[in-house]
Amino acid sequence: MNVLVVGGTGTIGKPVVEALRAAGHTVQTAERSGGDLRVDMRDPESIRSMLAQAGRLDAIVSCAGSGAWKPLEQLTDEDFETSLRYKLMGQVNLARFGTDSLNDGGSVTLTSGVLAHSPMPGSAAISLVNAGLEGFARAAALDLPRGIRINVVSPPWVSETLQAMGQDPSGGQPAAEVARAYVDAVTGAHNGQVLDSRTYS
Amino acid sequence: MNVLVVGGTGTIGKPVVEALRAAGHTVQTAERSGGDLRVDMRDPESIRSMLAQAGRLDAIVSCAGSGAWKPLEQLTDEDFETSLRYKLMGQVNLARFGTDSLNDGGSVTLTSGVLAHSPMPGSAAISLVNAGLEGFARAAALDLPRGIRINVVSPPWVSETLQAMGQDPSGGQPAAEVARAYVDAVTGAHNGQVLDSRTYS
Repeated sequence: MNVLVVGGTGTIGKPVVEALRAAGHTVQTAERSGGDLRVDMRDPESIRSMLAQAGRLDAIVSCAGSGAWKPLEQLTDEDFETSLRYKLMGQVNLARFGTDSLNDGGSVTLTSGVLAHSPMPGSAAISLVNAGLEGFARAAALDLPRGIRINVVSPPWVSETLQAMGQDPSGGQPAAEVARAYVDAVTGAHNGQVLDSRTYS
Repeated sequence: MNVLVVGGTGTIGKPVVEALRAAGHTVQTAERSGGDLRVDMRDPESIRSMLAQAGRLDAIVSCAGSGAWKPLEQLTDEDFETSLRYKLMGQVNLARFGTDSLNDGGSVTLTSGVLAHSPMPGSAAISLVNAGLEGFARAAALDLPRGIRINVVSPPWVSETLQAMGQDPSGGQPAAEVARAYVDAVTGAHNGQVLDSRTYS
């Protein structure tokens, strides 16, 4: 399969790319800087232009996106705007615009996160974005043409991220395990599903 | 209690206002046109200005907001933008800015809808918005100060709406029943919950 992985050099994206390549798939990565292709997920035109360069695809995977993490009273209009534009609409637009690049029976896999349903203090903007992505994917699955599937992977805290933050990595899931959920979304038959990566340990 | 109901003259809002008044509460309504106060939910400054006029409150209820209903391939950038700005960020901003107007132990009640979890063809933008609102409320509940609560009411298709669309109203829930969920959100102890109005029939 020809697979495009947006965010393919990040903590989760890297093992996703490795696992897909190990399974014999051809992978192109897209990043804001670095990667095979350049893309600014906040900019719809940049997404369209990147997709035009990527060519025909069998799967589009997004491991991209972050949101503002602050107590509600400190979240500004701009924090919400950025979170919506980047992780939420960036991924929604990748799915919308990417459909035309996908072969029949292809797939789109986006990234949400457990904060959608298990919030923490400070996660209001991120929980909004993650839950919104899941609602979008459930509905978009009913409208996509030509047997194209769409799913969302919901990772918990990733061990490598916790370690980088100076916290106990054993509280998280290793990125290589999280990657299995993405591979299953690409190679399996799921559609309109939220795949909790913790079930792939 | 002093209650502000945004969208208080709409299909759901009207019986919510009636039920709150019947229970002895003082209700101000806010609308784009008509109502006691004027508000354009797409405009953060309009929300701030309306709240300043509303004065001290014990509860803020939003029955406002709609989204674009179209097959995914026909949903435009503007359809998403409008849906996000109106029903999603309009209600999020009402909660954010309204907190300062609320007395200790007050509450915010927003409106999502069953399409968050039971999508239909054409509901991608609305399902995104409804699910996002629920994710926001679950998380915001952890951050709100002074015992202030936040909940979301999720109504199904409302009988009166189906009738207005020329469809069988028996497939929906009567608005007066839906209103009970809002009254319970205001007068009960729920926090960070999604109240399915169908359980109030």
